[in-house]
Amino acid sequence: MSEFSRPSGRAPADLRAVRFERGFTRHAEGSVLVSFGDTRVLCTASVENRVPGFLRGKGEGWVTAEYGMLPRATNTRNDREASRGKQGGRTLEIQRLIGRSLRACVDRKALGERTITLDCDVLQADGGTRTAAITGAYVALVDAIGVLRARREITRDPVHGAIAAVSVGIYRGVPVLDLDYAEDSDCDTDMNVVMNDGGGFIEVQGTAEGHAFRRTEMDAMMQLAETGVAQLVALQREALAG
Amino acid sequence: MSEFSRPSGRAPADLRAVRFERGFTRHAEGSVLVSFGDTRVLCTASVENRVPGFLRGKGEGWVTAEYGMLPRATNTRNDREASRGKQGGRTLEIQRLIGRSLRACVDRKALGERTITLDCDVLQADGGTRTAAITGAYVALVDAIGVLRARREITRDPVHGAIAAVSVGIYRGVPVLDLDYAEDSDCDTDMNVVMNDGGGFIEVQGTAEGHAFRRTEMDAMMQLAETGVAQLVALQREALAG
Amino acid sequence: MSEFSRPSGRAPADLRAVRFERGFTRHAEGSVLVSFGDTRVLCTASVENRVPGFLRGKGEGWVTAEYGMLPRATNTRNDREASRGKQGGRTLEIQRLIGRSLRACVDRKALGERTITLDCDVLQADGGTRTAAITGAYVALVDAIGVLRARREITRDPVHGAIAAVSVGIYRGVPVLDLDYAEDSDCDTDMNVVMNDGGGFIEVQGTAEGHAFRRTEMDAMMQLAETGVAQLVALQREALAG
Amino acid sequence: MSEFSRPSGRAPADLRAVRFERGFTRHAEGSVLVSFGDTRVLCTASVENRVPGFLRGKGEGWVTAEYGMLPRATNTRNDREASRGKQGGRTLEIQRLIGRSLRACVDRKALGERTITLDCDVLQADGGTRTAAITGAYVALVDAIGVLRARREITRDPVHGAIAAVSVGIYRGVPVLDLDYAEDSDCDTDMNVVMNDGGGFIEVQGTAEGHAFRRTEMDAMMQLAETGVAQLVALQREALAG
Amino acid sequence: MSEFSRPSGRAPADLRAVRFERGFTRHAEGSVLVSFGDTRVLCTASVENRVPGFLRGKGEGWVTAEYGMLPRATNTRNDREASRGKQGGRTLEIQRLIGRSLRACVDRKALGERTITLDCDVLQADGGTRTAAITGAYVALVDAIGVLRARREITRDPVHGAIAAVSVGIYRGVPVLDLDYAEDSDCDTDMNVVMNDGGGFIEVQGTAEGHAFRRTEMDAMMQLAETGVAQLVALQREALAG
Amino acid sequence: MSEFSRPSGRAPADLRAVRFERGFTRHAEGSVLVSFGDTRVLCTASVENRVPGFLRGKGEGWVTAEYGMLPRATNTRNDREASRGKQGGRTLEIQRLIGRSLRACVDRKALGERTITLDCDVLQADGGTRTAAITGAYVALVDAIGVLRARREITRDPVHGAIAAVSVGIYRGVPVLDLDYAEDSDCDTDMNVVMNDGGGFIEVQGTAEGHAFRRTEMDAMMQLAETGVAQLVALQREALAG
Repeated sequence: MSEFSRPSGRAPADLRAVRFERGFTRHAEGSVLVSFGDTRVLCTASVENRVPGFLRGKGEGWVTAEYGMLPRATNTRNDREASRGKQGGRTLEIQRLIGRSLRACVDRKALGERTITLDCDVLQADGGTRTAAITGAYVALVDAIGVLRARREITRDPVHGAIAAVSVGIYRGVPVLDLDYAEDSDCDTDMNVVMNDGGGFIEVQGTAEGHAFRRTEMDAMMQLAETGVAQLVALQREALAG
Repeated sequence: MSEFSRPSGRAPADLRAVRFERGFTRHAEGSVLVSFGDTRVLCTASVENRVPGFLRGKGEGWVTAEYGMLPRATNTRNDREASRGKQGGRTLEIQRLIGRSLRACVDRKALGERTITLDCDVLQADGGTRTAAITGAYVALVDAIGVLRARREITRDPVHGAIAAVSVGIYRGVPVLDLDYAEDSDCDTDMNVVMNDGGGFIEVQGTAEGHAFRRTEMDAMMQLAETGVAQLVALQREALAG
Repeated sequence: MSEFSRPSGRAPADLRAVRFERGFTRHAEGSVLVSFGDTRVLCTASVENRVPGFLRGKGEGWVTAEYGMLPRATNTRNDREASRGKQGGRTLEIQRLIGRSLRACVDRKALGERTITLDCDVLQADGGTRTAAITGAYVALVDAIGVLRARREITRDPVHGAIAAVSVGIYRGVPVLDLDYAEDSDCDTDMNVVMNDGGGFIEVQGTAEGHAFRRTEMDAMMQLAETGVAQLVALQREALAG
Repeated sequence: MSEFSRPSGRAPADLRAVRFERGFTRHAEGSVLVSFGDTRVLCTASVENRVPGFLRGKGEGWVTAEYGMLPRATNTRNDREASRGKQGGRTLEIQRLIGRSLRACVDRKALGERTITLDCDVLQADGGTRTAAITGAYVALVDAIGVLRARREITRDPVHGAIAAVSVGIYRGVPVLDLDYAEDSDCDTDMNVVMNDGGGFIEVQGTAEGHAFRRTEMDAMMQLAETGVAQLVALQREALAG
Repeated sequence: MSEFSRPSGRAPADLRAVRFERGFTRHAEGSVLVSFGDTRVLCTASVENRVPGFLRGKGEGWVTAEYGMLPRATNTRNDREASRGKQGGRTLEIQRLIGRSLRACVDRKALGERTITLDCDVLQADGGTRTAAITGAYVALVDAIGVLRARREITRDPVHGAIAAVSVGIYRGVPVLDLDYAEDSDCDTDMNVVMNDGGGFIEVQGTAEGHAFRRTEMDAMMQLAETGVAQLVALQREALAG
Repeated sequence: MSEFSRPSGRAPADLRAVRFERGFTRHAEGSVLVSFGDTRVLCTASVENRVPGFLRGKGEGWVTAEYGMLPRATNTRNDREASRGKQGGRTLEIQRLIGRSLRACVDRKALGERTITLDCDVLQADGGTRTAAITGAYVALVDAIGVLRARREITRDPVHGAIAAVSVGIYRGVPVLDLDYAEDSDCDTDMNVVMNDGGGFIEVQGTAEGHAFRRTEMDAMMQLAETGVAQLVALQREALAG
């Protein structure tokens, strides 16, 4: 393995530089520009005093997410989904994942009949946009809850624990953490892992891109994900304390 | 655990009765009605002598999938997607999963400039439709390849190995194999695992429905999945020999 | 006419083998797989306790139909309508026809504020899918009403009489009953006739595919349709008695 | 039957006043405003030097139709289909009928690789819009062919015979010709009949609105249709001679 | 400038022949066929006793517009927007302009909780369809209000002043009024001006098609527009008096 | 007028603080975050080596624009257009305006068979998003051309002159420059003016929101726009020199 090197020069268990800019825009109750290296996602949390039809009158809230990518967030321009007239399968899949992940840390009774929508818009993509989005959306969500508490609209904190996500993969035979685009487009296996701050798993989505992966590889990836998420949770805490 | 019981009376590591009816319809090159208990999915494999734009002129084939559910395959009627004017996020997610899974066992060069479309239509749903679809689609795919070989359109078998899928989950604290609807709608964790006949993993998608799951639970589920897929591969082989 | 022969070897006034499999799937109130030879259509009748907006509060029910064809029900694969984003003109035309036809035998006051949706999904097509769909949907409808009566939700039978449908045409100059695909794609005139068990006409839709047809040809076709529907009604009765 | 009267005061076998205004607009190769009483439909025939994909390179032309209704052509305003984002089932059904009907009088080889599109837009509706549209579209078609011949783009007349259409029905027990809206919305049976000038039938579409209709009623309606179409064909001829 | 001439032979400040045919169709509360030369637009005003959601319960009415063009209103056939499944950007832009313009002369309190929809459908286009539409829609609106007053549904006239519109432009260096298609497709600048009868401006939309225009050119165009609108208002008044 | 004050405290002829951040994202050939006060729009210029169908083979290029607004760019969350399945009328109108404006400074022959797409995505809105978008898109366009020239793909500069845009309006009776949201939502007249650096007008779009505006008011607004655009052009030059 002496010759192994990642395109970015990182060690296998290194995250990219992660940064949270809270209050990036001013209208949303929570607004965070999260960066995982060159991947930059604007995550806003918007609070509305209504719930979807299936929850009306039940005294519970809802948390949902939408995901988008600016047409030139990537190396070649993609068609604008608004202009094509529909969201693609990848977009729907990612926004369903973000929504499920964040709901896992919210007590919807304590939220009351409100909807919090997490809009995650990728301004610049360099791999790992969905895990950056989840990690940043958590910070935006906490900020939005802070606004509700400051306004005394809710008294009990509906957020329990923290949620963060990271990708892991097998790149040239080596398990690596937090793949960038150069690795992502050339790896054998790609796995997105969402966890809470108690070390519990919320979502695990692994795909063999090249050859099938073995249990031992999976174990190594899970191990990396655990250390990666632990670091991300610490960074979220620090950002929220700032 | 003396009191633990599954709604169906099965032991935790039991599959439902699995059946493959090959040649269920007559027009498609491969046509299989697969049953996992009361879940019944019609899987057809259709061969066309053209490939999508991004592959044109490259001497490679393509394998893709579409998934649908008849409006009354479930307990209450769902709107017909054709009538609503779009496929939902769940549908797109599942058909992308089926396509990726089956491509993992196909040598696209050996297929030549052909597209094989796997249509998986759920006639009756009782949990695990996507894993049944993948498992049945594999059989339909092999039948379609058989037709191509019989017609001497291809000489080399483009299918290497077998692909099967099963769901596992934590139901009332116990890891169980092949959840039916009663379990699926009441479990803590639900995981879909796609593997090949060499014991390699193709896709792993786990979701915490209730509380987050631990590494030990995950390990137990992976273990169950391995035994489940091994049985399914044997049943596929038997059906194809029939 | 000594040399005249139908591709199937049938005599001009012969129906194909007609079969009704009641209870083909288990969730719907009525579920019938109807076969007219190789044409096989799954007809389900779903009962819902609501009516469309224009009937709300009027104490009347509604009967409607949707029609679909699995992508590979035919010899070459057709695009999935859900994926193209809309139902084609042929589909809409057929489902409007099925709905009108079945409403002709239902007393909507006696049904009460309920909607019965007849989903007719073609699993395998060999000509005459719309007439098979109507004939099978009637059996599914009666079964659904039977469920409502068993549950004592309605007391009076809203179904009066029976409805069945058959195609007739001029094939190589000879009027024939119940055209299969080989005849349908090569005939001069194609006519779909929906009748009730009292010999009354509900719908007549005739199209000259080749040359225009004459009154005498039309009379001969109507005659055939009358005998065909009479047989179908007898077969429905037998199936429902089974 | 001494007391029978039609809302318009017409005798049962009377057509409404029928008028053709040729050259109603100036851009189209054929442009006819047809009136059947208060029903007014603008029919334009547009020639384009291309054919749909399935005919390319076959040396044949195509004739197709589109149908629309201005939002306030009727007594209450209907949503604009362009704004709702799709054409309804009724619209698709009617434009398919118009297209099939007109193709029945065109020799597509003689037309050459051209498409003639018949746009039938209802400016004012009072029943029978589809039969007026077919009858008027024929005149627009002949005018467009006249332009092609004047420009010497074609030498042989691709139109053989004439096509006209009329509705017939059973109104208060009496067979009547050319129903207006007051009759249409209150009749037992409604039938649209398309014929050629040789007395041959092109399309017959009959629907029992109230009770089922009998063979004798059908015969009476067909009889009326024959006399109605014969008159319409004479009026077309006269208009084209004008 | 001795050699300057407009394709139509008009002087620079000449309008085309303008005509209003009131009561062109019979169902709408207001129905006007307006002609600006060969541009002919059918404008109907439809009254409905409901308002859009954002106005419900506020005691105010709404005025809105929809714009369409028949497929062969122009020299070459355009796709039907209903068939393409959406209204184009130009259509939306024009109908928003018509709606805003007409709302400028309506006291929505005096209208009460009613919606008046102005449908402007171009039967024949020869440049200036949007300005003809606005000018004709005003007459249809006044007629619809007349119907409401005759029915004693409203007592106070909600229409204050008159609205008319005209295009102006720089054609071959000369400011001209009311451009027809030949000028419009070959001019340097095109400006649409909506004004009221008091000489106030409601909308000004100018576009440099060729080179940028100067303040002096703009002033000359505004001047022409003022005289043009004054004539149109007089013609509207005359038509309404007729 | 002693009491007149703008919500922002600016003098009537003051622009907001205007800033251009070039190279805001790294993939696009040109990427500029433009700020007009709190209005922030990300403008990217993407170059593609193909042109729309109507220009193919003509040796000319194309410049087009797309506009979007992040769902929470505004005070209350707007539905995502990609999720609603279509771009609204306002969006289409704005992107058409941006495209026309930028094409006014490009020699399309000199550009060659390339398309430059200007994506203008509003991250934060506070009035004047379309004028900020045009002004920023110009800078992104120049940067993209710089990349093409650096790569020696083009030799002649296709951009002639500069384009900038500003809004003007009548706020509480006083003509003001560069309205922010507080003014925009409460003004009598709102006008968007696009000009080139030679003082020529490209687009003028004025709308009376409250009462109609007079020629003198229009003249005052045009005057303000001229001074505003002159300042913006200077700021663009400075940013491009930086």
